[in-house]
Amino acid sequence: MVKKTMVDALLKNTAAAVEEKFCEVLPETNEGYSSVVEAMRYSFLGGGKRIRPALLLEFCKLFGGSEEEALPFAVALEMIHTYSLIHDDLPCMDNDDMRRGRPSCHKQFSEDIALLAGDALLTHAFTVSASSIADNDRKIKAIGVLSRNAGYSGMIGGQVIDLAIENTPCETETVREMYLLKTGELLSAACEIGAIIGGADDEKIKMARQYAFKVGLAFQIIDDILDNIGDEKLLGKPIGSDAKNNKTTFVSKYGIEECRSIAAKLSAEAKEILVELSGDNASLIAITDYLLNRKY
Amino acid sequence: MVKKTMVDALLKNTAAAVEEKFCEVLPETNEGYSSVVEAMRYSFLGGGKRIRPALLLEFCKLFGGSEEEALPFAVALEMIHTYSLIHDDLPCMDNDDMRRGRPSCHKQFSEDIALLAGDALLTHAFTVSASSIADNDRKIKAIGVLSRNAGYSGMIGGQVIDLAIENTPCETETVREMYLLKTGELLSAACEIGAIIGGADDEKIKMARQYAFKVGLAFQIIDDILDNIGDEKLLGKPIGSDAKNNKTTFVSKYGIEECRSIAAKLSAEAKEILVELSGDNASLIAITDYLLNRKY
Repeated sequence: MVKKTMVDALLKNTAAAVEEKFCEVLPETNEGYSSVVEAMRYSFLGGGKRIRPALLLEFCKLFGGSEEEALPFAVALEMIHTYSLIHDDLPCMDNDDMRRGRPSCHKQFSEDIALLAGDALLTHAFTVSASSIADNDRKIKAIGVLSRNAGYSGMIGGQVIDLAIENTPCETETVREMYLLKTGELLSAACEIGAIIGGADDEKIKMARQYAFKVGLAFQIIDDILDNIGDEKLLGKPIGSDAKNNKTTFVSKYGIEECRSIAAKLSAEAKEILVELSGDNASLIAITDYLLNRKY
Repeated sequence: MVKKTMVDALLKNTAAAVEEKFCEVLPETNEGYSSVVEAMRYSFLGGGKRIRPALLLEFCKLFGGSEEEALPFAVALEMIHTYSLIHDDLPCMDNDDMRRGRPSCHKQFSEDIALLAGDALLTHAFTVSASSIADNDRKIKAIGVLSRNAGYSGMIGGQVIDLAIENTPCETETVREMYLLKTGELLSAACEIGAIIGGADDEKIKMARQYAFKVGLAFQIIDDILDNIGDEKLLGKPIGSDAKNNKTTFVSKYGIEECRSIAAKLSAEAKEILVELSGDNASLIAITDYLLNRKY
């Protein structure tokens, strides 16, 4: 319980820092393009647990980097996460009218503005990354990771597989690959970039990536479980959507209990990597537990 | 005539180099996400004059940089141009079924894949930029320009204004701002990035930007003229779309003859900047003339 409170406080502080920085790099405007800026701000500032920024900042600290150097990347990564949600909600994708208890971006504004707001968040992420005061060699390496993990062979690749397997039964291995790409790659961007900006060597960066994939897979499996037996009020959305859409998931393959056990094993392995990395890893261990035990 | 042949040859060589590099950085694949890669390749390799890459490479050469350093940025910039066309063609934007005489991306594939192919081209542009062998300080500066000029206060800002003024009469100043953002900013990215990678100082980079804005404005005015009196066969699309959509353009404000004179003046001013920059500017002067006199 103490640990949970610690993570709650950490996420709250992270959210405050990330949102303050975001408002600094994307202030309100009355230029001719103000509508797209308003839509970008609406979606970015509409909540979210800020897990990715928290992981990025904690991995940076673990290797001795400063929050000032890492914060622009934390904001950039969350902007990319936000753009992916805006585009995912569009009618030609998941066609979701609601997001985090509010109208989704295209419902609040319009489809064209939502499309452009997503494009603009993705684009601005790189302006913000390039503006960090961190060393340029590290920044180039981090920008490479950010774009690669978010790109066609990363997060977007996962979305493509997700679209392809909807309403089509598939192998567990395909679901696993989709989870690792769709969720794992962006979580890995958080951990890798944090490590890079903090000054970790390639071996340590690789371990940060291994940690992220274990946490990412567990994260998706917990999502599957919550979509079956979660609390709709806590989740802020109706449960049962996977079954309704005939989606093959880990739960449809293994059942709830086996899934709990797989997620717990992955989480334990992830924590072993943190122990191996040593240093001040208490916050990261607490976040790992928090993600396993989350109810929403 | 000699000059036109020279520019034709230069653009042909640029296209070959850019397309070869693109195929190197985005080879065909049979991974689960192959459909999005196919869509990215379909749109990128579907023609285009490759004006932006040519300007980027020539500006780089003007300041003594190598093609090897600049080529990844030339490809990245063209990927961003391509993504903007894919998203512009989507039903929620211009809803265009054809592009360069072929089905547009969402017609050839599907809306969801076209959306993701655009996202993936934009994202991959930064992976490719970060992979250049150029100096990291210059690369960070160039990535900042690329994302800023393509972003909400650049190209995307122009698209937002374009959407806002459709079917709504507006001031010439608004049309001018829209042209400068929608077309000028990406042409300016070409010239500025070429200058940066070539090693130009800030004063020269600023002049490259001034050149680009003059050429960009002239480029859009020529587009307006061609939409009124162009050859549909050469253009590969029907003329008269601006009038049909009740768009305020430079032609609707000033008429054809006055527009020709404005574009010629801008082009002459652009060439004066090239003369002031000195160096081996013959190709750039020839490109500037070519853009003024183009028929498609």
